[in-house]
Amino acid sequence: MTQINRQLVLASRPEGAATTDNFRLVETPLAPLAEGQFRVRNHYLSLDPYMRGRMNDSKSYAAPQPLDEVMIGGTVGEVVESKHPKFAAGDKVVAMFGWQEYGTSDGTGVRKVDDTHVPLSAYLGSVGMPGVTAWYGLNRIIAPKAGETVVVSAASGAVGSVVGQLAKLAGARAVGIAGGEDKCRYVVESLGFDACVDYKAGNLYQDLKAATPEGVDGYFENVGGEVLDATLARMNAFGRIALCGMIANYDGEPLPLKRPALLLTQRLLVQGFIVSEHPDVWPEALTQLGTLVAQKKLHYRESIAQGLERAPEAFIGLLKGKNFGKQLVRLI
Amino acid sequence: MTQINRQLVLASRPEGAATTDNFRLVETPLAPLAEGQFRVRNHYLSLDPYMRGRMNDSKSYAAPQPLDEVMIGGTVGEVVESKHPKFAAGDKVVAMFGWQEYGTSDGTGVRKVDDTHVPLSAYLGSVGMPGVTAWYGLNRIIAPKAGETVVVSAASGAVGSVVGQLAKLAGARAVGIAGGEDKCRYVVESLGFDACVDYKAGNLYQDLKAATPEGVDGYFENVGGEVLDATLARMNAFGRIALCGMIANYDGEPLPLKRPALLLTQRLLVQGFIVSEHPDVWPEALTQLGTLVAQKKLHYRESIAQGLERAPEAFIGLLKGKNFGKQLVRLI
Repeated sequence: MTQINRQLVLASRPEGAATTDNFRLVETPLAPLAEGQFRVRNHYLSLDPYMRGRMNDSKSYAAPQPLDEVMIGGTVGEVVESKHPKFAAGDKVVAMFGWQEYGTSDGTGVRKVDDTHVPLSAYLGSVGMPGVTAWYGLNRIIAPKAGETVVVSAASGAVGSVVGQLAKLAGARAVGIAGGEDKCRYVVESLGFDACVDYKAGNLYQDLKAATPEGVDGYFENVGGEVLDATLARMNAFGRIALCGMIANYDGEPLPLKRPALLLTQRLLVQGFIVSEHPDVWPEALTQLGTLVAQKKLHYRESIAQGLERAPEAFIGLLKGKNFGKQLVRLI
Repeated sequence: MTQINRQLVLASRPEGAATTDNFRLVETPLAPLAEGQFRVRNHYLSLDPYMRGRMNDSKSYAAPQPLDEVMIGGTVGEVVESKHPKFAAGDKVVAMFGWQEYGTSDGTGVRKVDDTHVPLSAYLGSVGMPGVTAWYGLNRIIAPKAGETVVVSAASGAVGSVVGQLAKLAGARAVGIAGGEDKCRYVVESLGFDACVDYKAGNLYQDLKAATPEGVDGYFENVGGEVLDATLARMNAFGRIALCGMIANYDGEPLPLKRPALLLTQRLLVQGFIVSEHPDVWPEALTQLGTLVAQKKLHYRESIAQGLERAPEAFIGLLKGKNFGKQLVRLI
C-alpha cells in the first residue's frame, strides 16, 4: 500500500495580516526511495517569525516561498527507511523538510543529532537556529561586559529566552520585554532575568525606565515598533543594538522609528543580521548551547500544537504573540 | 591703551529654529598676559553644524553651551604676544578659542601648524576636524572596497566633500547629495564625484536610484530626514552607514525614520560617531589629509563671512544649507 505524506503548501499570499486561508493541506503519495536516499518521519516542525517574510512576494534577504509548494521550515525526526550509506533507520536528524510529515533526502543539509541528553525538540529551539541566533547577536554584536544592562524583546520566546540567560551567564544585568504578566513572571522566576517589562500593561517607557535605572548598553531586538522606540530612548552612549527581528512590522504597513537622531547623539551601533549567513559560528555556538541545556543551566519552554493541520493556526498565533516559548507542531 | 576683544556670547536658547537674536556681541578689555600665557589674534572662526546642538539645554553627547559665555568654536590664528616658552609671536595655531577675535591660552589644546603648503584656513576644514570626521567615517565605518558605491549627503560641504574624494581615491564610486544645481555641478566637475543628486529638484528617490544603478554599499550621513529615508531604500545587503550628522533634525521636531525594517532585511550596520572621541586616528588622518591638500589631490571650497558680527547670520545660513563649502568667518 502506498504511504501518504500530508503536506501544507502556501495557497496564496497575504494581503495585510496572514490567515489560515493562505495555506492548503494536500496529501501526496510517497515515491519509493532511490539509491542514495533516505526517508525521515518528522516528529516536530518549527514555527518561526521569519516564515512570514517568505510568504510575501517582495524583496527580502531570501527568495519568496513559491506558491503551491511545501512551506519552508525546520524539522526534527527519525530516519525510517534508508538507501543512503551514512544514514540508518533510527537515526535522529535535524533538517529543513518543511511543513510535512515525511521528508526524503540525499543527506544535503541534514544533520544527525544525539537526543540522549538533549531532547529532540530542543534542536529546533535553544540548541538550534533560535539558540544560535541569540548566541550570535549577544556575543558578536552586543558583546556585553560584566555589569552592563542587556534588554531583549520577546523575552519569553525561543530566541529571547536564550539571549537573557546568556547575558546573565556573562555577568550582565538582563531585562526582558514580554507581553503579559504570565510571560513576565516566567522570564524572571524561571529564566532568572533581573526584571521583565510587560509591554501590554500600557506604560512601556516608564516601566522600562524603572527596570533599567542605569540605562541600556545592549539591546537585542525581535519586535520593532513602539518597543524599539522605547528602548532606544533608554540607550547609553556607545550602546549596541542587535537587530534580529521586527515582528511588529511583518503584517502590514512599515512602522517608523520615531527618533533616529538618538543613534547619533548616543553614538550607537546597530547591526541587522541573519544567523544563516554566519555558518562559521554554528559549531561553537551549538556545542555551548547543547552543553548548557544538558547541564540544565539553560532553560526553555515550548508551545506545542498537535498535528500538521494545526500549523497554520499556531503560526498565526505566533505572529500575534499567543505562543509562550518556542512554538512547535508535533507531527506524530 | 587697553585692547578690546570683541566676542559673541549665547544670549538665549532657541525655541524651534535658531535666530540671530540668540547671540549677543560684547566688547571685553584684554587683561595683561600672565607668566606662561600667550595671546592669539584669530584669523578665521569655523562654523559647524554641531554648534546647533550645543545651543540647546538638552541631553546630548556634549554639555550645553553656557548662556552669556563665548560661543564654542574652532579657530586658526597667529600668536601676537607670548610669555610661554613654547609659543612665540608669529606662530600659527589651531585652537578652540570660540567666537571671538583674540584667544588667550596656556597652551592646552592649542596646536602649532605649518601654513607653508597648506593654507591656514584649511586647518579648520579638510585638514581639520571636518576632514578627520570624513576620514574616520569613511575608513573606519564604511571601509569601501574598490568598485563599491559610496553616497554622502551635504556633499559639497566641509565633511562631505572630503568623504567623496577619499572614496574615489579608494577606488569606489562616489555619489553626492547636495542642494541645488550649482552645488551638484561643483561636486561632479571640481571634486570629481561620479554623480550628484540635487535633493531640491523634487525627485530625490528616483534621481538617487538613477545615480546608483548598483545600489549603495556605504552611506555617510550628514543630514537625516527624507535624505536618509531615500538612501536607506537604496542600500545593498551588508551596507554600512556612518552616522555623522542629522542637520535636518537640529531645528525643531524629531524626524522619524520611515522604514527601519530595512536595517534588518538588508543586514545593515549603522554606527553613530563623534570624531573627538577617537583621538587615536587624528595624527594619521591629519598627515594624510595635509599631504593630499598640499599635493592638490584634495580640493575644497570655502564660504567666508567677513567680520565677527556676521557670524550669527552665517551660522544660521549654514543650518539652512546656504553655505557653499566650508563656512568660515574671517576675523581680520
